[in-house]
Formats: sequence, C-alpha cells, structure tokens
Amino acid sequence: MLVDLRSDTITRPTPEMLEAMVTAPLGDDVYGEDPTVNLLQEETAQALGFEAGLFMPSGTMTNQVAIAVHTKRGQEVITQQGAHIYEYELGMMATFSGVVPRFVPAPLGVPDPEDIKKAIGRSIHKSPTGLISIENTHNIAGGTIVPLEVLKGVREVSLSEGLPLHMDGARLMNAAAGLNVDVREITRHFDSVSLCLSKGLGAPVGSVLLGSQAFIKEAHRYRKMMGGGMRQSGILAAAARIALRDGPAKLTEDHHKTRQLAAALEQAGYGVNHAAVQTNIIYVQVPDAFQKAEELKSKGILVNAVYADSLRFVLHHQITQEMLDHTIASL
Amino acid sequence: MLVDLRSDTITRPTPEMLEAMVTAPLGDDVYGEDPTVNLLQEETAQALGFEAGLFMPSGTMTNQVAIAVHTKRGQEVITQQGAHIYEYELGMMATFSGVVPRFVPAPLGVPDPEDIKKAIGRSIHKSPTGLISIENTHNIAGGTIVPLEVLKGVREVSLSEGLPLHMDGARLMNAAAGLNVDVREITRHFDSVSLCLSKGLGAPVGSVLLGSQAFIKEAHRYRKMMGGGMRQSGILAAAARIALRDGPAKLTEDHHKTRQLAAALEQAGYGVNHAAVQTNIIYVQVPDAFQKAEELKSKGILVNAVYADSLRFVLHHQITQEMLDHTIASL
Amino acid sequence: MLVDLRSDTITRPTPEMLEAMVTAPLGDDVYGEDPTVNLLQEETAQALGFEAGLFMPSGTMTNQVAIAVHTKRGQEVITQQGAHIYEYELGMMATFSGVVPRFVPAPLGVPDPEDIKKAIGRSIHKSPTGLISIENTHNIAGGTIVPLEVLKGVREVSLSEGLPLHMDGARLMNAAAGLNVDVREITRHFDSVSLCLSKGLGAPVGSVLLGSQAFIKEAHRYRKMMGGGMRQSGILAAAARIALRDGPAKLTEDHHKTRQLAAALEQAGYGVNHAAVQTNIIYVQVPDAFQKAEELKSKGILVNAVYADSLRFVLHHQITQEMLDHTIASL
Amino acid sequence: MLVDLRSDTITRPTPEMLEAMVTAPLGDDVYGEDPTVNLLQEETAQALGFEAGLFMPSGTMTNQVAIAVHTKRGQEVITQQGAHIYEYELGMMATFSGVVPRFVPAPLGVPDPEDIKKAIGRSIHKSPTGLISIENTHNIAGGTIVPLEVLKGVREVSLSEGLPLHMDGARLMNAAAGLNVDVREITRHFDSVSLCLSKGLGAPVGSVLLGSQAFIKEAHRYRKMMGGGMRQSGILAAAARIALRDGPAKLTEDHHKTRQLAAALEQAGYGVNHAAVQTNIIYVQVPDAFQKAEELKSKGILVNAVYADSLRFVLHHQITQEMLDHTIASL
Repeated sequence: MLVDLRSDTITRPTPEMLEAMVTAPLGDDVYGEDPTVNLLQEETAQALGFEAGLFMPSGTMTNQVAIAVHTKRGQEVITQQGAHIYEYELGMMATFSGVVPRFVPAPLGVPDPEDIKKAIGRSIHKSPTGLISIENTHNIAGGTIVPLEVLKGVREVSLSEGLPLHMDGARLMNAAAGLNVDVREITRHFDSVSLCLSKGLGAPVGSVLLGSQAFIKEAHRYRKMMGGGMRQSGILAAAARIALRDGPAKLTEDHHKTRQLAAALEQAGYGVNHAAVQTNIIYVQVPDAFQKAEELKSKGILVNAVYADSLRFVLHHQITQEMLDHTIASL
Repeated sequence: MLVDLRSDTITRPTPEMLEAMVTAPLGDDVYGEDPTVNLLQEETAQALGFEAGLFMPSGTMTNQVAIAVHTKRGQEVITQQGAHIYEYELGMMATFSGVVPRFVPAPLGVPDPEDIKKAIGRSIHKSPTGLISIENTHNIAGGTIVPLEVLKGVREVSLSEGLPLHMDGARLMNAAAGLNVDVREITRHFDSVSLCLSKGLGAPVGSVLLGSQAFIKEAHRYRKMMGGGMRQSGILAAAARIALRDGPAKLTEDHHKTRQLAAALEQAGYGVNHAAVQTNIIYVQVPDAFQKAEELKSKGILVNAVYADSLRFVLHHQITQEMLDHTIASL
Repeated sequence: MLVDLRSDTITRPTPEMLEAMVTAPLGDDVYGEDPTVNLLQEETAQALGFEAGLFMPSGTMTNQVAIAVHTKRGQEVITQQGAHIYEYELGMMATFSGVVPRFVPAPLGVPDPEDIKKAIGRSIHKSPTGLISIENTHNIAGGTIVPLEVLKGVREVSLSEGLPLHMDGARLMNAAAGLNVDVREITRHFDSVSLCLSKGLGAPVGSVLLGSQAFIKEAHRYRKMMGGGMRQSGILAAAARIALRDGPAKLTEDHHKTRQLAAALEQAGYGVNHAAVQTNIIYVQVPDAFQKAEELKSKGILVNAVYADSLRFVLHHQITQEMLDHTIASL
Repeated sequence: MLVDLRSDTITRPTPEMLEAMVTAPLGDDVYGEDPTVNLLQEETAQALGFEAGLFMPSGTMTNQVAIAVHTKRGQEVITQQGAHIYEYELGMMATFSGVVPRFVPAPLGVPDPEDIKKAIGRSIHKSPTGLISIENTHNIAGGTIVPLEVLKGVREVSLSEGLPLHMDGARLMNAAAGLNVDVREITRHFDSVSLCLSKGLGAPVGSVLLGSQAFIKEAHRYRKMMGGGMRQSGILAAAARIALRDGPAKLTEDHHKTRQLAAALEQAGYGVNHAAVQTNIIYVQVPDAFQKAEELKSKGILVNAVYADSLRFVLHHQITQEMLDHTIASL
C-alpha cells in the first residue's frame, strides 16, 4: 500500500468529476463564452460573498494577479513571515508587479494587527505600503488558522489606513471547517480572496480570484498578460464546481484524521507541536529530515522534507482510514 | 445553423479526446509526476525535433516564457510588424521581461533578413538586441507562411550575430501543411518554438514550448512564476496528445475550404487579397466592419471585426462542408 | 581649430555659471533643503506654466519618471515613430514601468491626431493606452517642430479619451524660438513636460520635470527609486538657473547659423532636406557616413554618423561665427 | 549656533572643492569624454583594488545597478536584516531588477555566514539566490562594522556556491578607519562595491561603483537606463576626487568625537548601546523620539527621529569641536 501524504494538491478527480468534465457545456473562455467557467465563477462569488470571480490555472496566478491589481510599482506588501506569496511564488511579486514584501512576525501563522500598523511605510524615505495580505490557513506555520478576532483587527487597520486587504485562501475552506463557521464570516473582512480548488477540495486544476466587479475587470487584464486566458477551460471548471460544492464538507473528517495521526506521531517519538495541528497539516521536527523521508518512503509512506529538520504530513479526502491505520502502524 | 468563423480557438474536444481525458493516468505536474503531461512533452519535442518540451495553459505563456529565458532586461526583441507577441500579449514582454519590441516590415508577414540585420542594436546609446522572434504563420497578415528560404536567411543572421531565434508557432502546423513539408524542415532553424494545440489542432487548452534541456529547465522556473504550474493537468494533456497526433492531417482540408470561401467572398463583392490566403484565415476589407459583422451574425455566421475596416474568417476541422456551403449561400 | 558639431549636449559652463556654482547657497536636496534647487524648480514651473517642477540628472530620467507616474503596468504609450523615449532610452519604459510603445507615423516629426486616435487600445484583447507622448522638437526627424495646430489636435484627443499627455521637451525652447512664441503657447496643451537644460540652453547637467503638485509628488518617489535623489545638487542647479534665464534668447542665433550651414552643405553636394532644417539640427544623407565622419574629423570637424547613411550636425551657442566659417570653408 | 547632526550627507563642499569644480577640465561623460570623471573612476578603482569604476549621482543608483548586473529576474538577494538596499531604496530592486530580498539576522549589523548558506534557495519550488549583498558599515544597526573574519566567511560561501558578492559601502571608509586597515583588506572579498563620496567623505554629490571591466561595461548600460548618464559631470567629479583623497583621513577624528558624544548622551540619561557605537553614528532609545527631536531643535541641535522610539546622531568633518561642546552642554 502506497500512502502519499506529501500534499493535498495530489488528489485525483473523482468519478463524478470525470463525468462532469466530459458532459459540461463548453465555449471559448477568452471570449467569456464558456458557460461552465461562468457558472463556477458565479457560484464561488456567491459562496464567498463577492460580486465577481475569475478562474485561473493556479493559486500562484490568482495571488499574483491580486497583488498587481491592488498595488503600484515600488510599493510594499505587508504579510506574515513565511507567507506563500513570497516563499513559494518565486519573486513574481517583484518581477511582475515591482513590489517588495514587508514581513510581520506571525507565531502559529497569526499576525498582530498592531505590528501591521507599525509596518506601514509613512516617510518619503521609505517605500509606501500598497497592500496587506493574509494567508489563511498558513501553510508553513502548520496549516494554522488566523482567528476571526485577529482578522477583525487587521481589517480595522486596513480601513483606517485606506489600504486594500487580500487573502491567500489556498486552504480557506480548511479554516472555515476548523472554526466551524460559514466561510463568509472569514471573507467578509477582505477586499479580495484567492481560493484554491485543487488542494483539499479535490479539483484537478484551478483557483478562483474573488472581488468587486471593478477589481475582477482589471484582474482579467493581468490574467491575460500572465497567459492565464484558456480556451475550453470549462473542462477544468466542471470538476472544480463539484469540488466547491462537495469538498468543504469532507474537510472536517480530514482534520479529525490529522489529529489522530499527530497523536500517533508523538507516540512514535516525533516532535509534534500540537498547538499548530489545527487543520490538515502536521510538521514534525526530526534530526535529518531527508533521510527520514527516504526511510518512510521505503515503507510506502510519502512525505515532504520541507526543511533539513522538518517533515510535513498532509491529509486529504483520498487518504482513507485504512491508509491512515497503515501509516500509524508503520511509524 | 450557426457557423462560427471567428477563430480556430473555439474548437470543441472530440469524443475521442473526452474519452482520453477521463482515462488518462494523472499525477501532480508541479512535482513533474503527471505521466500524461510528460508523454505529451516528449512527443511534441520528438515531432518538432527538440530535446525537451514544457506544457502550459496558453500560447501567450509559452511565448512570454521564451522571451524571458532568451533576454535580459532592457534589450530589444526584433519581430515582424504586427506580431502576436506584441499586438495580442498586452505588454507582457515589458512588464515581465523588461524588454521592448523592434519591428521590421513584413509584407504578407514575411520579413527581410537584411532588415533584421540592420535593426540590431549596436551602439552604446541604443538598446542591445536580445532575441529575434518570427511568427509563422503570421496571424494579422492573414495566416501567411514565412518561406523556408527566408527562415534560412533569418537563421544566418541569428547565428552570425550570436542571437537566439524563437518561433511563435501558434499555427506552425498550418505552415507545414501549407508548404507540404515535415514540420522539422521549419523548426530546425530555431532555438525555441511555441506550438499551440488549442487552435486548428483542436485541443481544448494548451501550448507546448520546445527547446534544449537547459532552455526548458529555465523555462520551468518562469512558468512557475507566471502561475502556469498546474496540478493534474494530464486531463488537458490527454486531449492535446490526440490533437498533436491527428490534428495536422486535417489542416490541408481546412486550407482547401478556406480557398473555397475566399473565392466565394470575392464573388460576393468583398475585397480579398488572394496572395494572403495561404492557410486557414481570410481577412476582407469592408467599409464598416462592425456593422457588417452584425449583419452576418443575423444570418447565423459569426466573424470577427478585427479592425474598423476589416473582417476575419477562420476555418477549422469542425467547420463542415455543409456549414461552408451555408455560409457561401448566405453571402 | 576644432569644431565639435556632434551635439548641443557638449556645451561647457560659461564663466558666469561657474561663478554661480561656487557661490550658490546649498543644502541636502534629498531633504528638500537645497535652496538653489528649489529656486530652479520654481522658476522653471513659472516659465512653463506648471504648478511644480523636479530637478533630475538627465532627460532620460525626467521622461521615464513621467511615464511611470502616468501609466500602469502593461499599458501602451503612443508616441511618434523615432521618439527618443524609445530609440535612446534603452528599454527603460519596459524595465521600470512595464509598458510598451505604440508608434504613429510622423513625417518631419509631426504626428496626425487622427492616427493617435486610431492607435488607442480599446479591445479586451489589446493592451490599453496609458499615455500619449510627443517629442518636440523631434530629434531624429531633424530637430523639427510640431505645429501648434497639431498640438491642439493631439490635446483634443487626449482630453476626449481621458488620456494624459506628456512632452519630451528636451529641445522645447528650440521649438518656441523657431515658432517665435512664448513657450507656454506650447506647454499649455500638456499635463507634464520634460525640459532639458544641458542641451542648447547650456547647463552642464540636468533636466526638470514639470506638472501638477500631485504629479510631482509621485514623481519624487520614482526619482528616488531611480537613484536621482542627489545631495548638494544646488551646484548643478545654480548653472541651470542661468541656462534657463539666458539660454532661450541665444537659440534664434543658433537657428540662423544652422540655416547658413545647411545652405553650405547643399552647395558642397550633401543631400539636405531643407524642410527638416527648422531649428539647430541638420541631418544629411551620405553614402558612407562613418567614413565621411572620419574624413571631416581629420579636418577638425566632429559630427555624428547617426546611421550608416546619415550624418548629424548640431549647432549651439558655443559654435562661434568663426567656427562656422571655418566649417563651411572646409566642406 | 546650529548643529546639524541629522546625517553626514549634509556636508558642504570645502573651498578647495569649489575651486576644483570651476577649474576641472570637462567633457560630455555620456560620450565617455569627461577627463575629470575618468580620473575619479580610475583613482577610485585603484584605491579599492578593482579594474574599473563608474560614477553615478547617488548610492541608490550604484547599488541598484549592481543588483541588476548580478541577478536575473525572479531571483533573491540575500542581505542583512535592515539593509539600506531594501529599507531606503524604495522597492527599486523589485521594480527594476525583478528580484526580492531574503534576510538573514544581523545583530549589530553582523550576519553569520552559516545563516547565509542556509538561506540560499535550492529547490525548484523556491526562488534561486542571485546575489549576496553586505552593507558595511551598517547604517540602521548604528554605523557598525562587519569584522574581517566574517567577510572572509561570507566570501567562502559566495565562492563555494558560485554566487556574486556585492558591498553597499556607502560608509565603507568609516569601516576601514574604524578597523584601522587599508580599505583593500575589506574590498578584496567582493566582486563589486558601491562607495559613496557624498557622505562622511564630504563630496557634494556622487557615488562610484567598482568591479571588473566586464561588470562595469554592463553597469554602464543600466546606468543609462536609470537616467544616470550625465553630461559635464566632471564638475561633481572634481569635488569627489578631493573627497576621495582627503576624506578618509578625517574619519578617525569623527569617530573620536562620536564616542565623546555617546558618553555625554549616556550621562544625560539617554539609552546608548555602546557596543554599537563603532564609527560616526549613534542611535539612542527615547520614549517619544519625534517630541525629543523637536525639543533638541529648539536648542539648535538637529537630529533625526528615525523611528518613534529612536533618535539618530551622525558626526562628520564639518561638526567642529566647538559644535560638539555646545551640543554636549545642551543635553
């Protein structure tokens, strides 16, 4: 038995998704004529409480398009230490948008609104702030959730300073499931949100960017520049619609299994920070992560050695109880 | 009957493609593990005579990634007047790569190698040339073919000046079909080629960038930056493989129908430049293109008013003889 | 006797300028505290009819800062064929501002407002226009003047389309002298103007960018980014103030000498386009410009072989009648 | 008596500099013909042990040009926390070069070579490192010196990893004076160095970038793009030559006075970190820096409130003993 715990990006389309892909009505989305893409965009906007949405091939693109729309060249984007838009989007914020990151500390992924306020550029000798971006859940910190109270505080800073607020919501639905709230309780604090459908929600490809009509109009131009204008992309949108509809309900079960695995890891002698195990991700400290990953691989368990001293385990709906039991037994 | 002659990008996947999409083995292509994507990349590289290929969601992305790999900031890209990389890729060469275009005249889409040589920046007061890019077939010029002799001449300039040579081969297979040569007779003159699978070849989504191993390695980084790293993109690659295998053979028939339509258009009093009707595209001059397009629409015939005085008709394998006859009858 | 006719950029500071440089009150201009820089900025704004001005080390910087303030990434800048912002500013518009040029024909440097109107990007498939920029006088066209009627027409397009209008006025004062009008008759049509003080006006270093208070505030940020924030730059501003005060009056004499030289060049058998000899520049067609330039050099006359078949002669206030007579005699 | 301790950038040219400025032979430096600029470039290259140098209007430009030459788009620049290239150069590294910073901790401005090694991007999911940049002395850390041993360690990382190493040496001569070593003991570890002549060395305007011939050739192109090509800039270079020749010898005295002032500040109850007082800068902690700065201003003492809780005092050769005594008496 092979158990692939490297990422929730590896989920395969379900039979229902495959069926939807081959029966969905299609059109040329560059002309705005793919009905399935249009439906997905409307449904996502509706679910998250925004005026409009725009489908793109990846979360990197939705995030980077959002940064481009919100900022001017030479500005700073305030974000959490370890944010994906910086750590895993390869300098795109600089190369495309001409902006630099400004980090605030984020223990367990949670920033302090006061730190954000202090980080705002105010002098003519400094780069002005153009955007505040919050990743939620925060991947590197362990799939951790930014509490609603903190979001409220960040929104107050954003409004009082006249700065737009974006969410990298690659795993936003995990945050909503973890907090057991309607996702709009989270999204209502933001001007734009990037939602990934190809992680825990299970779609094969795609993310949706949400915002106002005016925001999405400008986002459309930047998507085209980045090469994100696809043709009969309703094929992908058809699967993504099912991911949006059915995916969120499965996350609670994923989180439950994650806690099970975390307990087992601790028992097996791994260093687990339980405070960080909030959704579907576990980071454990080990002396030599690359060697340990090889060792687990030989037992049929795939994990990522994210750093030299750290392994990452990620759960998702295609990790069955049987696979989990096998993993726990192998530790 | 609705006959959509706006573009060959609007083709719908065939039943065989749909079947392939739902049965193809998948994986996470960001990890390089999607076997169907890998197959497509190898097959395309093989077909066009390159070491390696990289699948991306659009031809804009393959072209713009190629520009980024070949150039340094502040350089010039010499290309034909009216090239797609400038006219329809929305300033991406500037925003991402920091380069500007330098145009050479191209009557019927065909540049003169001598003009390219003269256009090369040589003074410290001028921007140095970083790349020569040739669009073939040339869309705006009418789907026209750059003759092999000319390509040879351009290649000589490229080699003697030490400049890389890229082809925007969105409709490269139409050029090969039009010349009735193996496509490698065309591609062997180039360091990199962008091939679009979602135009006349009929795939729903996707383009492949071809080049050396080292070139593709660097292209991989830029693709990720632009957000072109997709997950289970084998779904799209499965259809694209069929387009690559079966699409080229259908183009000769498309070209035949295009000439039929051109003759009918002329008879109907439209201004047709027959010298430019070489593949699957016809531009006709009309006094008020937008009004004329509306008029044709009312008869069930969709065309693009590309300019105020110009209509574009594009043929592809899903325009049947019956549709063509209907169109001709309606003119 | 050495007569250097390569450019009006080579003028040396006059004794009065040198005196001003060492007696001017200075301060740190990065703090906005250099009184001489402040005076220069105010005087230039006053002379050209703008709210505010900003001193920079070169005309490339004033132009490129203006482009950055007026545009967003991915837009187009409509300008005359052969404009300096493209031909001699080495791709900076792309690398810094992320914008591409869009050219309109400009025989004798004069664009047709109708062509500008047609060049504006209006479709979602095209890059939107962000700025119209007019070079006046137009260097490559021969130091030619854009007539007031044409400027009025361009301004009408700019206003009706809601697009900002910038002037590369490197040699604006030559245009005013050539037309024999107050410079504000020209500048009143523009949202921003770049004026060079180190060409015919005779300052050793420096250009001033003019615009509204809000425009200059944003320009300040971009100047700092480009490294144009200098410290005790009052030294340069002191000379520039004299250039601004006394330089314009000398240009009429330069233009007179230029016509003398043009007549002599024709008599000597050079191909001169008299229609283009409007200010202080003459381009002549010769079969081998580089060889001809060497030949003249051996006679103590320096000129630029701008292209392989074209020599440029430029007059300025430090070319005396004696030098001119010597040149004419040597031809 | 007014004592301006805000920065060493505010020094005024000495009478000898003024004399040099008006007697220096001049030329058009855009053509490479200003003999005084050429002399300054050669003398600086000689003094710092490099093949070639290039004069520019500011240290922001020399640093940012160096970053552009050393890197490709999308790469990371590893530098110390609080480095000037990020904190005070307004996002230019992103907007122009398309690169992002990667910070390593730097207590008292001193990085650990091991941290630099760990910070290097090695995975395909991460941005690759393009450059290591060290600021020395480190302004924000208090004008602190990076020890030679540490530079040696950083150089070993740079060589073993094949990464270029740049120094922001705005106050490099203060480091050499503080260590009492020939400046080449410091610079020999670097591929390129930016030296500012308008800070403690006393020139009114200008910095010089140093490197290999090939490096400077490419730097020349980027300088032109940023608008740093000046005409008769020998005026500025003439003063800068004297700053380079005579400035370094004066710094030891500045450092002596700085220690005097630090002792006095402590006695007056200010929080002084003596370990950080190594050259000509003192940061003191105060509860309300803006108010305190106003209070000192009313006594004729100007200082910068760099942060809400921190004042900066900077000494230079035009702060006389009398001014220092007056300052100490006023505290």
